Amino acid sequence: MDIQQVLDEIADEVTPFFGRGRVADYIPALASIEPRQFAMAVTTLGGTRYSVGAARQKFSIQSVAKVFAYTLALRSFGEALYRRIGVEPSGDPFNSLVQLEYENGIPRNPFINAGAILVVDALRGICRDDEHTFDSILEFIRQAADEEAITSDERVADSEVEHGYRNLALACLMKSFDNLHHDPVAVTRIYFRLCAVAMNVEELSRAMLYLANGGVDPISGGTIVTLGQAKRINALMLTCGHYDASGEFAYDVGLPGKSGVGGGIVAVVPGRLGLAVWAPELNERGNSLVGTKALELFTTKTGLSIF
Amino acid sequence: MDIQQVLDEIADEVTPFFGRGRVADYIPALASIEPRQFAMAVTTLGGTRYSVGAARQKFSIQSVAKVFAYTLALRSFGEALYRRIGVEPSGDPFNSLVQLEYENGIPRNPFINAGAILVVDALRGICRDDEHTFDSILEFIRQAADEEAITSDERVADSEVEHGYRNLALACLMKSFDNLHHDPVAVTRIYFRLCAVAMNVEELSRAMLYLANGGVDPISGGTIVTLGQAKRINALMLTCGHYDASGEFAYDVGLPGKSGVGGGIVAVVPGRLGLAVWAPELNERGNSLVGTKALELFTTKTGLSIF
Amino acid sequence: MDIQQVLDEIADEVTPFFGRGRVADYIPALASIEPRQFAMAVTTLGGTRYSVGAARQKFSIQSVAKVFAYTLALRSFGEALYRRIGVEPSGDPFNSLVQLEYENGIPRNPFINAGAILVVDALRGICRDDEHTFDSILEFIRQAADEEAITSDERVADSEVEHGYRNLALACLMKSFDNLHHDPVAVTRIYFRLCAVAMNVEELSRAMLYLANGGVDPISGGTIVTLGQAKRINALMLTCGHYDASGEFAYDVGLPGKSGVGGGIVAVVPGRLGLAVWAPELNERGNSLVGTKALELFTTKTGLSIF
Amino acid sequence: MDIQQVLDEIADEVTPFFGRGRVADYIPALASIEPRQFAMAVTTLGGTRYSVGAARQKFSIQSVAKVFAYTLALRSFGEALYRRIGVEPSGDPFNSLVQLEYENGIPRNPFINAGAILVVDALRGICRDDEHTFDSILEFIRQAADEEAITSDERVADSEVEHGYRNLALACLMKSFDNLHHDPVAVTRIYFRLCAVAMNVEELSRAMLYLANGGVDPISGGTIVTLGQAKRINALMLTCGHYDASGEFAYDVGLPGKSGVGGGIVAVVPGRLGLAVWAPELNERGNSLVGTKALELFTTKTGLSIF
Repeated sequence: MDIQQVLDEIADEVTPFFGRGRVADYIPALASIEPRQFAMAVTTLGGTRYSVGAARQKFSIQSVAKVFAYTLALRSFGEALYRRIGVEPSGDPFNSLVQLEYENGIPRNPFINAGAILVVDALRGICRDDEHTFDSILEFIRQAADEEAITSDERVADSEVEHGYRNLALACLMKSFDNLHHDPVAVTRIYFRLCAVAMNVEELSRAMLYLANGGVDPISGGTIVTLGQAKRINALMLTCGHYDASGEFAYDVGLPGKSGVGGGIVAVVPGRLGLAVWAPELNERGNSLVGTKALELFTTKTGLSIF
Repeated sequence: MDIQQVLDEIADEVTPFFGRGRVADYIPALASIEPRQFAMAVTTLGGTRYSVGAARQKFSIQSVAKVFAYTLALRSFGEALYRRIGVEPSGDPFNSLVQLEYENGIPRNPFINAGAILVVDALRGICRDDEHTFDSILEFIRQAADEEAITSDERVADSEVEHGYRNLALACLMKSFDNLHHDPVAVTRIYFRLCAVAMNVEELSRAMLYLANGGVDPISGGTIVTLGQAKRINALMLTCGHYDASGEFAYDVGLPGKSGVGGGIVAVVPGRLGLAVWAPELNERGNSLVGTKALELFTTKTGLSIF
Repeated sequence: MDIQQVLDEIADEVTPFFGRGRVADYIPALASIEPRQFAMAVTTLGGTRYSVGAARQKFSIQSVAKVFAYTLALRSFGEALYRRIGVEPSGDPFNSLVQLEYENGIPRNPFINAGAILVVDALRGICRDDEHTFDSILEFIRQAADEEAITSDERVADSEVEHGYRNLALACLMKSFDNLHHDPVAVTRIYFRLCAVAMNVEELSRAMLYLANGGVDPISGGTIVTLGQAKRINALMLTCGHYDASGEFAYDVGLPGKSGVGGGIVAVVPGRLGLAVWAPELNERGNSLVGTKALELFTTKTGLSIF
Repeated sequence: MDIQQVLDEIADEVTPFFGRGRVADYIPALASIEPRQFAMAVTTLGGTRYSVGAARQKFSIQSVAKVFAYTLALRSFGEALYRRIGVEPSGDPFNSLVQLEYENGIPRNPFINAGAILVVDALRGICRDDEHTFDSILEFIRQAADEEAITSDERVADSEVEHGYRNLALACLMKSFDNLHHDPVAVTRIYFRLCAVAMNVEELSRAMLYLANGGVDPISGGTIVTLGQAKRINALMLTCGHYDASGEFAYDVGLPGKSGVGGGIVAVVPGRLGLAVWAPELNERGNSLVGTKALELFTTKTGLSIF
């Protein structure tokens, strides 16, 4: 199979879909993004990289960051984490307080906002301070992507804080149930800085290799998580990775994946490769419209779906 | 009718009910209150005062303060306030986020916590700063009670802040719907200081006179709110004044009233008198157990129910 | 006070409000009602009757029937009924299943649909069969109104059955919680026949006298319910009588009352008189728009509000 | 890989887990099942069959039947079905009315009870009558299992009807939203007869082959559904197949699967084989406890997980 050719075909075939979605506009820093952009990259377990489009263009990874934070927390706490965060799909939209209230402050999974905030709170518990907590997660992302130059866009982070009162409400609610252990304002700020990390699709596809390879980075040979933990993360990406459209994504694409409102999506072909796509226009469920289409074309053309 | 004799009888008859409830224990400052205390006071429109028990003992008025804050807001904003706060019973427990989420951040009425926080936010909009906002409400309470010595117990307020993350979650949620206009942390702090205002039953019964007299203070002759606004507040106290037990209270007592977790309850006999009772043990719905019983005895003995 | 003159004035003053509401259209039998109709009647405890407009025109009493069914059940079962039906406002729209599910099949009060269906089920338990159950309630209505000619419009009842699947869902849900004891389809049918009872405002105002007079019919002298039970029903009408607009009605009108989607509203001035009004156009909350206005004018003109 | 040996090992290794779960007891017909039973079967695409335990013992397939009904509906209606049933995980327990009410009578997916009842209603629309509807689905099950002797246990079906008021409530609620087109009582009865179909693990593992083989029965060569539809059903089994424990199952087992409260679970290894397991004791989420363990051992031993 000629992966580069597949990517080139996809780049052509998604063109008609531009203009059908809407760039995220809840914060100015995202609303000003030029909509008709596209990039896609594949990194194989052997380290070969293929890409098409604006593959070096950095963008805000947003909820894709949840995968890295959860990985670090799962590695640090193991099964103890399940007492504080569930592993089931949520059914409700990604930011609903209702389920959180009915379930006594325990978020359904680590990929809804409440769950990711709780993951950050857990990591805060083993770090010196807020800064060190953020740095630890960022350092892990750099290591997974094998790229030291990755940073957070503080302008985006500040903008998130300003408009992020719903997330602060989630944090306060978990705090009221004693499931959050640190200051909600501080923990939420770390979370927003994480969402504001800027990466490109080449870096992201590289950073998925440990999940495509049973928890071991196939290039460095380092063990990041156990095989069981890697399977757990992949299963969660499949069942909960796309908010209220996870079922649709499981069918359309048929791969474990995680999207962000910045327009990025990462995905994993177990035993084969890591994938990332970026296109800022979102569909009505908040996932990259052209990105989802591109991943669907990829599994159709290559037959690499897990189903 | 000999009101003093009625009060004396009630004080006797409620004795068997001591020990059946539980003092609020969500903050240390309230948990340490001696449970078997009781006080009741009546002030007539003419200014005559009757009382029994620990009538000069100050206690934390807690949610009773919501009546005063709402009065001030209704006087300041009139019907414009109804765009930001409803006037219907809530059905859910007093601090539920569910309804607030489904109704886009508009609290159902000013006597649930979210509603009272919003009232404070509205008043903040016409005051210089946070301090001035609190002072304005406190000054109104002093005026209604005709007593300058009323203050807030800052130790209780601090304790509330420390344990009040659910209320902060409510404030943040309303902020996320753009229904709260100021900083949630600051507004919530003003609200907690208000809950921590310390008064005795004599002062509270005096402070109800404007509601028993169609909006006009019968002693000073000053108009506090319009007749229509006074009726509105009384109607709200009847339908929403006792959290999830408002229907029960409407039946058992048959008077507009408002309770607080400090064990105080105020009530109004329209055209006749103001009432206040205090007994720190709460029933399972969070209202003073002995206080509710005392008010029930009062309307039974005097026939002064509105039904 | 010249009650007849008050009614005549009201009839004039409500004219501008015609055309602002919508006749209930969920069943054909109600949708075909001529909208611009109006009637109002008052019956004093002494039996004097005043009326204006189409006071002899029969209409479908709909949810007003809930008052009579609950009266009969309260008389038959007393406080035992409270184990199966609550007495608190519901907050949610009148036909919501959500609260019923979260509260294990126990309806919040007897004036939401689920509560009224449960009342019918309770009465079914002390009657020979379905027919006898319906007949017993109808007979009680005739007695309260002192009018033998009252019947149910079976065409309306059939139409309700055909479109009443949400009510059947409520009944089935209560059955699944073992709170409904008889066949949901049969019980729901009795309920619909009850809603389809046709009465005029003169009959309805007469039928309220026992509630205005502490449980005793002031004309016949017969005790219908105890004083406590009469107060309970009045308190429930005040807090729960108008679906999701009960707080608004408590303020605007300031009397215990109950509305129906047929455009009728009954109300009670304790110690004075019974009232009924009819005007088929409904406001957005499902209560008679012109009828509510007429009652508001009545308490404004007579000063007879309970607040 | 020696599949028979794998099955034999599993049968040994699950023994310690007997007695840790509870047989479904909501109907007498299921409550009387002997708990410590176990059976497991594998059928390869080539038609080779392996089994262990009580592999010929028939049991009530219950919710496993939803897979067959949905297959038939998807084949008959294609994408048009998505207007009436969603494809997303539900988050709530399998029989909740809450979500159904908030989403206007459209069930989240075909594997919650409401969804399966709607599937039956859709099939009813292309059949002569209720009997023919049931017969069509049963006939399809027989064809998929290549076994004519499969029938429904009418004693179980009757028992379900008697205790199935929550399901009837779901049907009535959907009817009230006009999403159910036929009589709720009749449709629900067909659904219960379907749940009462009795099969053994050999038949069930055989019946999964079309899903393991892209929609084509590998033995008969007949096309049952399109490749896309087969992928859709597999994706739904993975994300929604185990009620409120679908995420857990996706991780523990890592295969598309569907469980029933009769203790049966079917699963699919795409491109390889069909699986079925039976053990009547359920875990707290309502899935076969020993059956889930057995499937987890199967993917661990064979490495056949999709992740």
